[in-house]
Amino acid sequence: MAGPGADGAAGTPVTAAILLIGDELLSGKVADENARFLIGELRELGVALRRVVIIPDDLATIAREVRALSDAHTHVITSGGVGPTHDDLTMAGVAAAFDMKLVRHPRLEALLRMYYGSTGKPAADWERNLVMADVPEGVELDAGDVLPWPVTRVRNVIVMPGVPIILQKKWSAIREGFRQAPWLNAAVYVNVDEGPLAVHLDRVVAEHPTVACGSYPRFDAAADYKVKVTLESKDAAALATARAALLGWLPAGWVLRVEG
Amino acid sequence: MAGPGADGAAGTPVTAAILLIGDELLSGKVADENARFLIGELRELGVALRRVVIIPDDLATIAREVRALSDAHTHVITSGGVGPTHDDLTMAGVAAAFDMKLVRHPRLEALLRMYYGSTGKPAADWERNLVMADVPEGVELDAGDVLPWPVTRVRNVIVMPGVPIILQKKWSAIREGFRQAPWLNAAVYVNVDEGPLAVHLDRVVAEHPTVACGSYPRFDAAADYKVKVTLESKDAAALATARAALLGWLPAGWVLRVEG
Repeated sequence: MAGPGADGAAGTPVTAAILLIGDELLSGKVADENARFLIGELRELGVALRRVVIIPDDLATIAREVRALSDAHTHVITSGGVGPTHDDLTMAGVAAAFDMKLVRHPRLEALLRMYYGSTGKPAADWERNLVMADVPEGVELDAGDVLPWPVTRVRNVIVMPGVPIILQKKWSAIREGFRQAPWLNAAVYVNVDEGPLAVHLDRVVAEHPTVACGSYPRFDAAADYKVKVTLESKDAAALATARAALLGWLPAGWVLRVEG
Repeated sequence: MAGPGADGAAGTPVTAAILLIGDELLSGKVADENARFLIGELRELGVALRRVVIIPDDLATIAREVRALSDAHTHVITSGGVGPTHDDLTMAGVAAAFDMKLVRHPRLEALLRMYYGSTGKPAADWERNLVMADVPEGVELDAGDVLPWPVTRVRNVIVMPGVPIILQKKWSAIREGFRQAPWLNAAVYVNVDEGPLAVHLDRVVAEHPTVACGSYPRFDAAADYKVKVTLESKDAAALATARAALLGWLPAGWVLRVEG
């Protein structure tokens, strides 16, 4: 959609931050899968991811980080800390971030009662799980028509679970709402080191400010090139101009191949 | 070593933060390997990793983040942004973080001249690479006796390269300097959901404040348990007491197995 979060005509980019919440990620008990997944998704959707942060299950830290990321980005996606145990503090943290109360949400409570009631288990087994209906009073519920449990959003903060398969299912229901104009890319593979290359890249940066230029050396024997130079823009004409300029400046014999 | 950074007698933990610098990580062009590696290393070394942050190649962002992480943690490890091209801004960012000048370091310059001189290439091919000798005036060079290129450190900030094989080689030369008392762990695998379990975990948290308690549900069919409860401490007696208490409170039949 070209909603309020769309890339502006003046080129103001739509930005995002990812906040992973969980002691288990910092201790290495669990290896991150969610940032890895969302990085690829946001890229494909044309959203400029500006920051990824991993923090512990600590209420004050969550609140401070959510507020700072929310202020500085178009979208914030959190992952983790939304279950029923003592270390699930994300909803309380988001509420604190925005000075909202944590309140029991009638629709979420009804969903939980319906689900757990249908299991036939005694209420004592699942009553504690009703704390998962405690959300910031400003919460909005997205995609509740297609998901068994809606996506919870507070302002520009999407609160996602930490379990990868559940996060991915929920994300698939809302991802198209984030879509922006795609990035256009070119890559130039050269057989020289960054040293002699740098002056030409400086010139790209100086003369083509709307094109991002990256320089990625390889030092392992398996690579058939020494540096991969990337050019990237949402403006096809600007990208083509920068690409032609760079290829014109590089001495004959340096360029192994060009992609894009 | 039990240096100034050792766990205090009062239990003040030695903490760390990891700062990954690079547009390529946020765009997904390169998948992080360095945080993944360092998370495991710090865990094994008994250091409490408190935060991982990924930011773009932006000077002001690097400076602000380095300063904030340095103030809040015993150690900060940065990765990326230390080559000779326009997007290698880490040294300038670290200098700015501490209001230091960026200066050409004679020993580093000599190392670079020796290395590139030995390649037989004309100086024009590598003179630009001498910018890699430009470091904050407060830099200290570690492990220069065992590494071809020393580890650069500014106050409590270890500045590491982004190329994983080089980072790992450098880290291996300094890692033992970070070692603290190890974490001791226990894990209890149960066949009930987090709901009925939560009240018992609350009690662990309340009655055993020096033992960290985690709760990790599995929702996939492949798992033979529903929740893995972890207990963790550097205090063996405290861990054993909490473990015994938890096992005493859990109803018969809930516990599938105990590790540690």
